Amino acid sequence: MTRAVDVIRKKRDGETLSAAEIDWMVEGIARGDVADYQWSALLMAIVWRGMDRGETSALTNAMMRSGVVVDLSSIPGPKIDKHSTGGVGDKTSLILAPIAAAAGVMVPMVSGRGLGHTGGTLDKLQSIPGLQVDVDLERYKAILREAGLVLIGQTAEIAPADKFLYALRDATSTVESIPLLASSIMSKKLAEGIDGLVLDVKTGGGAFLADLEDSRRLAETMCDIGHAMGKKVVALITRMDQPLGRAVGNAVEIVESLACLRGEGPDDLMEVSLLLAAEMVLLAGLAGTIDEARAACARTIDDGSALERFRRLIAAQGGDPRVVDDPSLLPQARRAIELESKRAGFVHALAARPIGVATMLLGAGRARVDSTIDPAVGVILHKKLGDRVEVGESLCTVLVNDERALPEALTMIEDAYRMADEPMDGPTLVVVERLEADFT
Amino acid sequence: MTRAVDVIRKKRDGETLSAAEIDWMVEGIARGDVADYQWSALLMAIVWRGMDRGETSALTNAMMRSGVVVDLSSIPGPKIDKHSTGGVGDKTSLILAPIAAAAGVMVPMVSGRGLGHTGGTLDKLQSIPGLQVDVDLERYKAILREAGLVLIGQTAEIAPADKFLYALRDATSTVESIPLLASSIMSKKLAEGIDGLVLDVKTGGGAFLADLEDSRRLAETMCDIGHAMGKKVVALITRMDQPLGRAVGNAVEIVESLACLRGEGPDDLMEVSLLLAAEMVLLAGLAGTIDEARAACARTIDDGSALERFRRLIAAQGGDPRVVDDPSLLPQARRAIELESKRAGFVHALAARPIGVATMLLGAGRARVDSTIDPAVGVILHKKLGDRVEVGESLCTVLVNDERALPEALTMIEDAYRMADEPMDGPTLVVVERLEADFT
Repeated sequence: MTRAVDVIRKKRDGETLSAAEIDWMVEGIARGDVADYQWSALLMAIVWRGMDRGETSALTNAMMRSGVVVDLSSIPGPKIDKHSTGGVGDKTSLILAPIAAAAGVMVPMVSGRGLGHTGGTLDKLQSIPGLQVDVDLERYKAILREAGLVLIGQTAEIAPADKFLYALRDATSTVESIPLLASSIMSKKLAEGIDGLVLDVKTGGGAFLADLEDSRRLAETMCDIGHAMGKKVVALITRMDQPLGRAVGNAVEIVESLACLRGEGPDDLMEVSLLLAAEMVLLAGLAGTIDEARAACARTIDDGSALERFRRLIAAQGGDPRVVDDPSLLPQARRAIELESKRAGFVHALAARPIGVATMLLGAGRARVDSTIDPAVGVILHKKLGDRVEVGESLCTVLVNDERALPEALTMIEDAYRMADEPMDGPTLVVVERLEADFT
Repeated sequence: MTRAVDVIRKKRDGETLSAAEIDWMVEGIARGDVADYQWSALLMAIVWRGMDRGETSALTNAMMRSGVVVDLSSIPGPKIDKHSTGGVGDKTSLILAPIAAAAGVMVPMVSGRGLGHTGGTLDKLQSIPGLQVDVDLERYKAILREAGLVLIGQTAEIAPADKFLYALRDATSTVESIPLLASSIMSKKLAEGIDGLVLDVKTGGGAFLADLEDSRRLAETMCDIGHAMGKKVVALITRMDQPLGRAVGNAVEIVESLACLRGEGPDDLMEVSLLLAAEMVLLAGLAGTIDEARAACARTIDDGSALERFRRLIAAQGGDPRVVDDPSLLPQARRAIELESKRAGFVHALAARPIGVATMLLGAGRARVDSTIDPAVGVILHKKLGDRVEVGESLCTVLVNDERALPEALTMIEDAYRMADEPMDGPTLVVVERLEADFT
């Protein structure tokens, strides 16, 4: 007979748990015979002792099977999603989903809300008037079939065990564990019914994992899980030292995403969005090489089909598609403040985390899970890493409604910029490296 | 503002918790704002990272202060208790308490129930008809004043935080941690209102901690806590390889205790009981040296005053004092079975743990906290370490009522004996070493 106390002891003593033991513990959440206090002790033992590939896959599998595993087999075409570990100004989902869809990929995307210094794709999308993200799984399938892409919030039916464990980890300081992070992400993604997954694992000061080695281990672990579950997974490790693109907020990030879909976005954001979309096209088997895939993606921008897909997505999810041509229909902040530079020089650092925290303080993000969001506020960065700045030139525009946190936010943004007299050695590339599940 | 999640993270990361943080966590149990699942994660982090002296004392202090700290200052005389970490056949409390009391020590003893392979002093005592151990703290003080000794069960008022944490540790495999073990024991003992404490820390196969190094660390940690709390504490590390004395059970251990109080007990049990009692007399300041203390203790046996004290204790706690002179008034088993030796030779091992488990199976102990006890059953060992045995000679007498577990128990007892042809190099001493809190 399996007993929770014995499973905990085994992990505490550094032994390897069997898949049957892990299943029993995860199923015990719904059965009600494994207490939350037993799970939290096990979680801490996992933070301590780690989990090997087999254990991590077993945990992912058990959490995935705790809820509905969506069957998308009735919908033709390769179903590929992308997941990012989250960053500041990261609106790549909003850009690459229409691009990949226009290139022939079916994109079933279940996304998250922002918390702390990072924003959430759903919050950004919901700045479009009328747009719904809380739809049930039947409607999710229907939208995917109809529009070729869908972007909704996590439903209660997807991986409920992960939801339970995530809340427990949050309350017990057991979040920071590579196998726990990887299995949490993968259990939800694999429950979506996808054939393949492109991972964008952020690294650097604005990322959840600042250290490159940790980011690499997380990426490898997720690729391993995908492999064990028979799914195609590829991971890009991308830099999150400064915010991605120029817009940080919600409506402002929709505007910037639309610019990218017209081919008019900032270089770093265009680059990483196109590359991630190309990986999706490649995983879908719609191109023979990454260069071909990338060319196919670029064409969807040139011929307007990506923008058209975005319009279709908005309409399918009940939003006002006119925002695509008239961004002034999006929520507008009452006041725009230019933050002028007090000195001349070159930007040597633009720390992503304080920019994220400052926009959160202005109301664009959540300090707590139950905070409400002001879709109109945010920051538009005019100067980024390596840029030359003159005295009095605007570093960024701060869009604000509730001005209570404004002084603190402005100080924080100003402090995020580090300037020096000499030019910077050209900004580093966003993509650090590429990992693929080993299919040998 | 202190938050549980931050305290857990600190310990997870190997940092030292402040006394204020530990207080806040322990008080949070009663306040209700620290969840059991947060405590269990912290407990696992403590198993992982350990606790230093300051943390361990702070935890002890906080658990002690979670309930009533008994004030015995109105009762004259030095109040000294003894605590044992538990062993098989360990009835020393029943012997040394009357001895120490007869020698002038006030002995306020709050004792425990048996669980698993070890018996409990309360269970043994309750085989005496009518004897009450569940008395309130007012009655506890009255009995102490009246009889000079008292032996009761833990009340709900003593260290309720320890009770909560102990149950949680039991369910989450976080029992085996020296600082957690030490603080749990000491919080209860220090709440009794004692001036000093003698610790009997068992080591060897039948002990909770088999390894001498672990036993030593536990003893040192408890001495340190006592020192930090301004109490006199001395610890003896004693061997628990074979059962202590010859009787293992409940009524049979009362009978053996009475024999000891008449000076007719087995050597090992007499030796360790007298030594522990002498340490109590020394801590109480009633003798100048351990030899003087021991002589004073021996006199209480010779002059019958120790036996008289036991009689007084029984009467004060509502039991039938006639059992002192007529042990046949104690519960008797229906059947006595002699376990005959199949071979001749010398006893080279008599493993305490299987003997304890076998008597538990016969009904003398508890497999679970809610098991009921049969006071009459048990084992009387005729052959112990080093003894010469002929074929067909009785190794032990097994006293039994419910015979369902008898075959398994007999096999277990037989297997606990290891025999060899050559004589054994004389049985090792029971007391391994002596530790004292450093008062410098």
